[in-house]
Amino acid sequence: MTVKVAVAGATGYAGGELLRLLLAHPGIEIGALTAASSAGTPLGQHQPHLAPLADRVVGETTAENLAGHDVVFLALPHGHSGEIAARLGEDTLVIDLGADHRLADAADWQRWYGSEHAGTWPYGLPELPGGRDRLRSARRIAVPGCFPTGGSLALAPALAAGLIRPDVAIVAVTGTSGAGRSLKPHLLGSEVMGSASAYGVGGAHRHTPEFAQNLGAVAGQPVTVSFTPVLAPMPRGILTTATAPLATDTDPDVARAVYDKAYAGEPFVHLLPEGSWPATAATVGSNNVLLQVTVDADARRLVVVAAIDNLTKGTAGGAVQSMNLALGLPETAGLPAAGVAP
Amino acid sequence: MTVKVAVAGATGYAGGELLRLLLAHPGIEIGALTAASSAGTPLGQHQPHLAPLADRVVGETTAENLAGHDVVFLALPHGHSGEIAARLGEDTLVIDLGADHRLADAADWQRWYGSEHAGTWPYGLPELPGGRDRLRSARRIAVPGCFPTGGSLALAPALAAGLIRPDVAIVAVTGTSGAGRSLKPHLLGSEVMGSASAYGVGGAHRHTPEFAQNLGAVAGQPVTVSFTPVLAPMPRGILTTATAPLATDTDPDVARAVYDKAYAGEPFVHLLPEGSWPATAATVGSNNVLLQVTVDADARRLVVVAAIDNLTKGTAGGAVQSMNLALGLPETAGLPAAGVAP
Amino acid sequence: MTVKVAVAGATGYAGGELLRLLLAHPGIEIGALTAASSAGTPLGQHQPHLAPLADRVVGETTAENLAGHDVVFLALPHGHSGEIAARLGEDTLVIDLGADHRLADAADWQRWYGSEHAGTWPYGLPELPGGRDRLRSARRIAVPGCFPTGGSLALAPALAAGLIRPDVAIVAVTGTSGAGRSLKPHLLGSEVMGSASAYGVGGAHRHTPEFAQNLGAVAGQPVTVSFTPVLAPMPRGILTTATAPLATDTDPDVARAVYDKAYAGEPFVHLLPEGSWPATAATVGSNNVLLQVTVDADARRLVVVAAIDNLTKGTAGGAVQSMNLALGLPETAGLPAAGVAP
Amino acid sequence: MTVKVAVAGATGYAGGELLRLLLAHPGIEIGALTAASSAGTPLGQHQPHLAPLADRVVGETTAENLAGHDVVFLALPHGHSGEIAARLGEDTLVIDLGADHRLADAADWQRWYGSEHAGTWPYGLPELPGGRDRLRSARRIAVPGCFPTGGSLALAPALAAGLIRPDVAIVAVTGTSGAGRSLKPHLLGSEVMGSASAYGVGGAHRHTPEFAQNLGAVAGQPVTVSFTPVLAPMPRGILTTATAPLATDTDPDVARAVYDKAYAGEPFVHLLPEGSWPATAATVGSNNVLLQVTVDADARRLVVVAAIDNLTKGTAGGAVQSMNLALGLPETAGLPAAGVAP
Repeated sequence: MTVKVAVAGATGYAGGELLRLLLAHPGIEIGALTAASSAGTPLGQHQPHLAPLADRVVGETTAENLAGHDVVFLALPHGHSGEIAARLGEDTLVIDLGADHRLADAADWQRWYGSEHAGTWPYGLPELPGGRDRLRSARRIAVPGCFPTGGSLALAPALAAGLIRPDVAIVAVTGTSGAGRSLKPHLLGSEVMGSASAYGVGGAHRHTPEFAQNLGAVAGQPVTVSFTPVLAPMPRGILTTATAPLATDTDPDVARAVYDKAYAGEPFVHLLPEGSWPATAATVGSNNVLLQVTVDADARRLVVVAAIDNLTKGTAGGAVQSMNLALGLPETAGLPAAGVAP
Repeated sequence: MTVKVAVAGATGYAGGELLRLLLAHPGIEIGALTAASSAGTPLGQHQPHLAPLADRVVGETTAENLAGHDVVFLALPHGHSGEIAARLGEDTLVIDLGADHRLADAADWQRWYGSEHAGTWPYGLPELPGGRDRLRSARRIAVPGCFPTGGSLALAPALAAGLIRPDVAIVAVTGTSGAGRSLKPHLLGSEVMGSASAYGVGGAHRHTPEFAQNLGAVAGQPVTVSFTPVLAPMPRGILTTATAPLATDTDPDVARAVYDKAYAGEPFVHLLPEGSWPATAATVGSNNVLLQVTVDADARRLVVVAAIDNLTKGTAGGAVQSMNLALGLPETAGLPAAGVAP
Repeated sequence: MTVKVAVAGATGYAGGELLRLLLAHPGIEIGALTAASSAGTPLGQHQPHLAPLADRVVGETTAENLAGHDVVFLALPHGHSGEIAARLGEDTLVIDLGADHRLADAADWQRWYGSEHAGTWPYGLPELPGGRDRLRSARRIAVPGCFPTGGSLALAPALAAGLIRPDVAIVAVTGTSGAGRSLKPHLLGSEVMGSASAYGVGGAHRHTPEFAQNLGAVAGQPVTVSFTPVLAPMPRGILTTATAPLATDTDPDVARAVYDKAYAGEPFVHLLPEGSWPATAATVGSNNVLLQVTVDADARRLVVVAAIDNLTKGTAGGAVQSMNLALGLPETAGLPAAGVAP
Repeated sequence: MTVKVAVAGATGYAGGELLRLLLAHPGIEIGALTAASSAGTPLGQHQPHLAPLADRVVGETTAENLAGHDVVFLALPHGHSGEIAARLGEDTLVIDLGADHRLADAADWQRWYGSEHAGTWPYGLPELPGGRDRLRSARRIAVPGCFPTGGSLALAPALAAGLIRPDVAIVAVTGTSGAGRSLKPHLLGSEVMGSASAYGVGGAHRHTPEFAQNLGAVAGQPVTVSFTPVLAPMPRGILTTATAPLATDTDPDVARAVYDKAYAGEPFVHLLPEGSWPATAATVGSNNVLLQVTVDADARRLVVVAAIDNLTKGTAGGAVQSMNLALGLPETAGLPAAGVAP
């Protein structure tokens, strides 16, 4: 059986990563590729790394062009996917890489995005408690934000086990591709190289409510989240540093055992050997999450560090993993188990 | 009057930055340049950017070679400066860029460095309360660590004003030059580029007690410090993100006013306009500290971000600033007021 | 049928890239992994990106440990592969990623490497004229150097067609991984980032005779080669700029037609659409060669630019491609047809 | 005496670098700062590294705003400076950092820029033969292009001494700031990092006729120039590799002696010790040119490598050096003699 797939937003970074993965996915046929302003141009002009698709001409993102596929990936700016999805058949698996359908609470959406909520879809993070069940046979899937992917997996075991108090501080260092191909001065190479800078500080980043939603569900109580993203001079990768006050004195070995157990059997989440700390470079192009946890006895805090590739596990890889689960394919199909390093 | 200056450790990164600043400092005569294994070679072989000194031959780091100067800068691995300083006259201004004389508590030193404490010298961070008084006419100065420079200035006003509880979480993203010219695999360009990685996690970094010392002095009570350094792919710069629970509900404007007042008149500490957040690139090669502060109302935390150049304000610039104060020179002499960007 | 493969030099950059490719190659079983000083340690300590092999313990590089495999890859410093290969059976396919067996002329070897020549093996660049024939059923294969891979493919069509005079100037900008994991000061991240530097200038680089050998064979006459490598701040990639005097006035379209014809049907060599010029980023992690050619009418020179990933097509990918041909597997098996970008 | 200076184009990269240098120049008063679309905003919004000027409001670029200064620097897109200069007094020193007045030949201008030629001004490269004489007391100065600065100094001595034939091949690796703050997709950090790419290939770059003009003047005969610029992932720096056929067999020592003599006494041009090759990092923020030359005996070519900072010596530093000469100030005033490294 061949699964026929369409990608809307094929000329962006998320769309490009998705196509890279789909090209190596056995049993996938790549159908319509669509975009907005670049419709009518060959894909090679925008994604020169996708050599096998270089001559494919990009169509316009319309429900008509996306119809007739088994799976439709929407890698669009937020606010656009609801309407298109409504015009695709209910049997079509629609996977939204944007933000529209991640939040369960319409008021949250309204507060952070200022527009009408398009509804909530099953959340595509299989490694969260109950995550896989939500995805099996789903026909609508909301792919998590890149920051909540790393941060939720970093903190979920500790919250579920009651190791920490529900008051977490997260600083996540991200590569520039997370901002997409936006023509903004601060994203120019000349500005980015050699520079680290914080943005969306003080709880202003739109991924904040998604953190709270995920962590609160795991903890069974509201979780206070202080989140600061930092832009670093690298194209890909998110290094999440998450700390929280210990609920009670805890030995580092106990903390490690909690994480070891939580992620035993997970194909993509790897707790590193004791004493090793993750680097984002080791995850580039892979669907892996590399994790380490310890206890700061003086500060009485748990410290967890997680590395992912924001475009792979944080976006397109997570999307493919969810697709695999929804379609009953092997969960790891088409997903690189090793990173590209150095 | 010309001040005659010697630099021990002239072939390292800190020594090189010091010489760059001293070359542009009016009224300085650069005397002996010494090193360990590279003694006998021309400086240009190690510091090709210091064109005016390229032909100077590096001597061995001995008290004899360093004698006869008004000022001796020691940019040495820790453990080496105490003995040399003891053999230099009491009238000589000795400025230690290493860690040996920063900590006031011998037990702290013993715990973190495992060797005998060499004694405490006046601490070279003029912008801390009482900082300038400690340095006037000093003849021994301990230059702060690069992380505590940024982090202490980020948090001191809030602690002094009682805005926050004495329980701070600091994540500091640093360039690679902070590790010096050490031949370690994880510092190779191939490993560093495209990668962010945490190290010294869980309170294991040796700058942790220096944070606690500085912040505790300002707060007038012990301060709990969770500190995580993150290595980022840039040669220079430290971006410090510091958060702490608010002592009481505080308006962002009030927080800004506290910082504005604390650093009014400081030549090198700049609170950015509201809404602007600092980037390390803007500080490269300068002695500036760029700061911003806000309140995360949901998380009930104060968030401060500070950018410095780890080699300039964080090491060699801080050293020159302290020298200026100790010798009664203009505090800003020889210190770039503008960064090199992009 | 499963092909059992051993990798000597598994902890280096070339070995790591090889393992990344082999992990995704259908029908390969990864057997012995060996190294020199790091024997006895888990692979994950050196190659944290190869998650599926993290717990594999590295053995010592000996003929005994490498025996009993269908294919043995040798990713060793030059001078070591001849002796080991001699002790492996003649039926074993031995693929040398080092320099030992690339040069046909023993005097050339002696001049450039100063040691005794270990003999010449079939040369693993299938896209050169006659390249595939040399590799079918081969049991010893010399993988080309990374620079000659890009430069030979850039110039071969023009020389074969007589477009240019046999006097070429090549400047190749390379990422740092080409130098391996060597602990040399100029390869430190602090030195590399933000810097471009030439090395091996004036014909001093050891790949020079390999260029001359390849290009001379294609041209049917000696070719004079001026080759300058430039180190750039990126982990991977080689951008080769090759120019040569036109043999006679030539229209750019004619030049393009020559290249188009030369590489028609090649699975990995892609002549870009007119007006597009290759960037190394588009080749990262793939086995592709991206090419463009034009004529500088004023300077009366042909100009060709080629981009490859030095570790993939330039080393490990070329090795796997040659293995596929020697074993009668599909030539493209296990070789990414798309790069990892951005 | 204080020299009052205005800068048009103050919010761009060239303008920013100029202001950085002028801030440290003794005896300069910084007057009007003007721009186009960003007029009316504070400079700190665009140039956060220029802390002392952060609150200065940018005016509009008009002759009125620029009048009343001793020196007016024009850092504008080409095509704009002629008209403004015509409206400034003849006693005003007008220094154009753009391309408008560099070319001596109106037909050349017309061919490469497609508009009417605005006239030729004295050329601001003092190190060329006769260069200083052209600048003394000049009241109009054309600052060279960044590529011709490095490339002309790399080749002038060899051409003047007749070491090489007038047929040169230049490949220049440049940082991204040379393209200015243009919002183009290929200049985004995500695209630039990890990538090398050629552009303006085949003689298409507009600096080509400027090379030919400079080199032809030195050689006393037409010089054929093949020029290829390569974009590399670094904010600043140009590494020029220039090769040309030897006129006759030449010993490397003889070539070095020619360069040594040509640049003896030059404050900013440094021939490195034999065996050392320049890296751009060593020039960052300085006005230096680091040079090395050798002979490739096999290829019978001279090879010269030169490193500069494109924004300093290649643009703003060259402009200040020319200003100093025109005003009779010390030539090196305000120009860093040491780079910022690592």
